[in-house]
Amino acid sequence: MNGPEIARMIQLLAKLPGLGPRSARRAALHLLKKREALLRPLAQSLGQAADAIRTCSICGNFDTLDPCTVCGDARRDGATICVVEDVADLWAMERGHVFSGRYHVLGGTLSALDGVGPEDLNIASLVARVRAGGVGEVILATNATVDGQTTAHYIADRLASFDGVKVSRLAHGLPVGGEIDHLDDGTLSAAFKARRAV
Amino acid sequence: MNGPEIARMIQLLAKLPGLGPRSARRAALHLLKKREALLRPLAQSLGQAADAIRTCSICGNFDTLDPCTVCGDARRDGATICVVEDVADLWAMERGHVFSGRYHVLGGTLSALDGVGPEDLNIASLVARVRAGGVGEVILATNATVDGQTTAHYIADRLASFDGVKVSRLAHGLPVGGEIDHLDDGTLSAAFKARRAV
Repeated sequence: MNGPEIARMIQLLAKLPGLGPRSARRAALHLLKKREALLRPLAQSLGQAADAIRTCSICGNFDTLDPCTVCGDARRDGATICVVEDVADLWAMERGHVFSGRYHVLGGTLSALDGVGPEDLNIASLVARVRAGGVGEVILATNATVDGQTTAHYIADRLASFDGVKVSRLAHGLPVGGEIDHLDDGTLSAAFKARRAV
Repeated sequence: MNGPEIARMIQLLAKLPGLGPRSARRAALHLLKKREALLRPLAQSLGQAADAIRTCSICGNFDTLDPCTVCGDARRDGATICVVEDVADLWAMERGHVFSGRYHVLGGTLSALDGVGPEDLNIASLVARVRAGGVGEVILATNATVDGQTTAHYIADRLASFDGVKVSRLAHGLPVGGEIDHLDDGTLSAAFKARRAV
């Protein structure tokens, strides 16, 4: 009804997570109404990102630089590697300023259901980084899901043979600000087991 | 933490309706993971749309042509104009193949609260189209909201002086497939008032 350009735009927008066909149409209309203020800048920005952003060959982060800003920052602790499932987790930690070492992005979790094996994840490159030496601790910061914890166990096994390399995982317990009344049994039980003397 | 390109991309994506800062970040990560399959095609598609799509000078539709495909289609009934609030409404009607005349997009509704007056909508151009002659009926297809109905009343008043131009509005009643038990009182009352002999 109005040229293939709009149809194609809607079709591609609908592939974004969180946008279905209906909201993609709404987004397309919004963009067309704000052609100079939003549509053109977004087109340019996406084009620039496609050209400029690369995957860090060391840790798997997205950045304009390779090695990325984190891996290239000499002030950061190269002896500690935090292993995360996804770049989103890395970004969350950087936003929170909770960690000052280096990262390693797995690119997912082991999953028998989805047919994801160790060779589908960036595990060999992690082992190679540890083997290269200079690493004192590997923090397994996978999600507290079944797949995340399975993956953490698998990696811990793979790294067990390296003497002098401590392997740790994030603590489980009450989220800060969380109410006990609303907590699931698993978290509550984990918080009891990991209780500390005051 | 990873160059201004990603930050700018997230910032612009967050301006789309239905995407907040959090889902914009998720969308950006998704795009970066599918750089060649999605990010680059989307950037190109948006750029092409920004260049090619224009607003129809007659009805206000978005199209690569001006006059748009609907206004330029000689097979469509030029004597009937369907007045809609938004291009989205026009698209919905075209998807449903429910109307074969021409359209007029108002670009919103009158709203005292938001300070939208008649001069902010494409009302003068509608009156001009009717004044130019050849129009037998104007269908007011604004939303069944207070603002939509206020706008319809205002336009009906403006068009009252044209002899031989019928002004109508869409029927109110039970949605097809709708259950009476779940219907609001306003719709039910409208359906009673507009009842028809079988």
